[in-house]
Amino acid sequence: MDYNRQFQDLLAEMKLDGRYRTFAELERMVGQFPQALWHRPDGGTQKVTVWCSNDYLGMGQHPDVLAAMHESIDFSGAGTGGTRNISGTNRQHVSLETELADLHGKEAALIFTSGWISNLAALGTLGRILPNCAIFSDALNHNSMIEGIRRSGAERLIFRHNDAAHLDELMSGVDPDRPKIVAFESVYSMDGDIAPIEAICDIAEKHNAITYLDEVHAVGLYGSRGGGIAEREGLAERLTIIEGTLAKAFGVIGGYVTGPALLIDVIRSMADSFIFTTSLCPHLAAGALAAVRHIKTHPEERSRQAENAAKLKAMLMEANLPVLDTPSHILPVIVGDAHLCRRISERLLNEYSIYVQPINYPTVPRGQERLRVTPTPFHSETDMRSLVDALVAIDRDLGWTGIRSAA
Amino acid sequence: MDYNRQFQDLLAEMKLDGRYRTFAELERMVGQFPQALWHRPDGGTQKVTVWCSNDYLGMGQHPDVLAAMHESIDFSGAGTGGTRNISGTNRQHVSLETELADLHGKEAALIFTSGWISNLAALGTLGRILPNCAIFSDALNHNSMIEGIRRSGAERLIFRHNDAAHLDELMSGVDPDRPKIVAFESVYSMDGDIAPIEAICDIAEKHNAITYLDEVHAVGLYGSRGGGIAEREGLAERLTIIEGTLAKAFGVIGGYVTGPALLIDVIRSMADSFIFTTSLCPHLAAGALAAVRHIKTHPEERSRQAENAAKLKAMLMEANLPVLDTPSHILPVIVGDAHLCRRISERLLNEYSIYVQPINYPTVPRGQERLRVTPTPFHSETDMRSLVDALVAIDRDLGWTGIRSAA
Ligand SMILES: Cc1ncc(COP(=O)(O)O)c(C=O)c1O
Ligand SMILES: Cc1ncc(COP(=O)(O)O)c(C=O)c1O
Repeated sequence: MDYNRQFQDLLAEMKLDGRYRTFAELERMVGQFPQALWHRPDGGTQKVTVWCSNDYLGMGQHPDVLAAMHESIDFSGAGTGGTRNISGTNRQHVSLETELADLHGKEAALIFTSGWISNLAALGTLGRILPNCAIFSDALNHNSMIEGIRRSGAERLIFRHNDAAHLDELMSGVDPDRPKIVAFESVYSMDGDIAPIEAICDIAEKHNAITYLDEVHAVGLYGSRGGGIAEREGLAERLTIIEGTLAKAFGVIGGYVTGPALLIDVIRSMADSFIFTTSLCPHLAAGALAAVRHIKTHPEERSRQAENAAKLKAMLMEANLPVLDTPSHILPVIVGDAHLCRRISERLLNEYSIYVQPINYPTVPRGQERLRVTPTPFHSETDMRSLVDALVAIDRDLGWTGIRSAA
Repeated sequence: MDYNRQFQDLLAEMKLDGRYRTFAELERMVGQFPQALWHRPDGGTQKVTVWCSNDYLGMGQHPDVLAAMHESIDFSGAGTGGTRNISGTNRQHVSLETELADLHGKEAALIFTSGWISNLAALGTLGRILPNCAIFSDALNHNSMIEGIRRSGAERLIFRHNDAAHLDELMSGVDPDRPKIVAFESVYSMDGDIAPIEAICDIAEKHNAITYLDEVHAVGLYGSRGGGIAEREGLAERLTIIEGTLAKAFGVIGGYVTGPALLIDVIRSMADSFIFTTSLCPHLAAGALAAVRHIKTHPEERSRQAENAAKLKAMLMEANLPVLDTPSHILPVIVGDAHLCRRISERLLNEYSIYVQPINYPTVPRGQERLRVTPTPFHSETDMRSLVDALVAIDRDLGWTGIRSAA
């Protein structure tokens, strides 16, 4: 076995495919978001406007969040030094869990080191302990849900994206006595579309299934208190479990699930990926708590973000750029080719100081490569104008919008 | 399907078994480690001495670490707002990766949100992409390695704990042309024993295998620069990959792997659990960097810890308490019964203000329940005396050491 050869071949194949990723090295600067300092590969630095951050509301630089973190570091230090069970449960975790349960109108919450782990832990555990469980999974579910379902060992049935009728059909084909979970997202991260939550809940109820909703791209952004799409549509109580992240609209890091106390206790007690790892630092929980509390009572940031998303979308459309007409804050500009997508992104960065990472396979299917643009409350009209003008200029040069419609 | 019934039954069974865990709610206090504030279930608070923290050197309260975190928060804010690929690679990550590669004398390093994820990502990916790979796994490997191996889909062959001859036997039975990985730990977390690294590397080399060493409980603690047991024994270059955590001796949170640049690039490029999650906050990387740098040039903390571990072990032995005679800083005091273990721990906490969490199944096998005691540089001789006296007093009352030897 020649290991190096094997590894080289794999990477060469990715490069050929345009799938090999190079990470842009950034330096975030408080007070200047969405500007950041790009550390160029040649060693120089360049100020750029970031258009692909999931710090959707800029809470990652909010004074309340930073103050809560500073204060907690001064008082409690850095890490917890333990798993939740072994000296690693802190006052800050308990407070945050109480706050998150309240945000979603649930009995209990459990926090994890990431949203990724929360999906792995929750779905991985529920699907495993419910005997002969069938999990119905939206075709576009995030990798972390897919990994959780895989880990559970339960049968996975994939329903067509956002298609409640297809879900019903699949559920009708499964023994009514079997335990069932319906797993889906509210706002889909790459297409920016939104699930028909009520229709899915109706079908799930008809078949006596647990409903599991990933609101990672919606918490903090939708609903009167930032509880997500389920809150906005008055449907939160129809979901058994709502899962979210602390790393996007809340601006910090970590993930969580909320739901009935009994069920959360089962996940807490049985999920390996929760049990066998050091718990979140106290100051991260404190920062997230400050973010959740701020957002609960301050709709300003998300209103501003919604306005900016609408404004930019109109500008992109007016310029005949191929933006998807989404009902959310996510604006995917479709390119449809991996190499081209990378080239546009490189030119934006090098020539226009605009940073939008190309999104290629496996994050989106091949042929759906895109620039995923995320306006925040802090993008100015000038920022928007520069982005649109740059895309148009690069199109004039590369003819990429034409390439796409010809495909 | 009656879901609640199912969940209730599962929890009831755990309670009956003594496996149901209740988390002690603590509040860490900078400058007072290993003392912490226990928030009692009755709402009161009580100062306790923590004897089960994996903040082994108290780096979680070290001024350099906290200063680096404060500074980075002031400059770069809270979260990164992105996955490593999508706006989430920061200067602080790159610096830390360079430093960690240097610590272990490797070409490259990659950081993750936890040590748990680093094992899942690295083993899960390598075992999956090497065609027909066989992974040889020590019988006592940590859950995160087991999950990585499971995820890889590779064949898993378990060798008896620390038994290089058995490893050789198993490897000899597998086609020499198949790719192979030998996965093991240096310091085993629950027994505190240390692997025969050289013998295992010899066998692995003979069979042309990749060697994967988890040094989670050794980095920062052993070796002249805190590079772990492999560094101490001059064996680091014989390991293909060394994995570690930033959450124990380094006092923060996060995990990493170090190894050949090519191999690290493969993990970076192909590990789902690395790709699809928000990256570590910049200030966490900055804090960990400060910890690694401090430890590289300051052996004081780990010398003091080693002295304290030796001192406490001698005291426990002198008092005829059933402590394992380990070659590391981990002192397991064996109880051998889940309920008893919990009772001793509860009495220590309530009556003596001493916090040592009971370690029960599934963290250790049934019948090996224990109190896992971890002396730090900050435990005083008075702390040690109080612990030993309390254990002896509880033994006088419950006769637990006698119960064990009778079993
Ligand atoms: C839908 C969805 N769920 C879960 C996650 C994981 O969340 P986190 O970044 O907190 O790990 C992501 C993205 O990162 C996501 O897009
Ligand atoms: C041997 C071993 N490896 C990995 C881990 C996971 O590290 P982390 O706590 O950083 O997730 C642990 C414990 O937590 C461990 O004991």
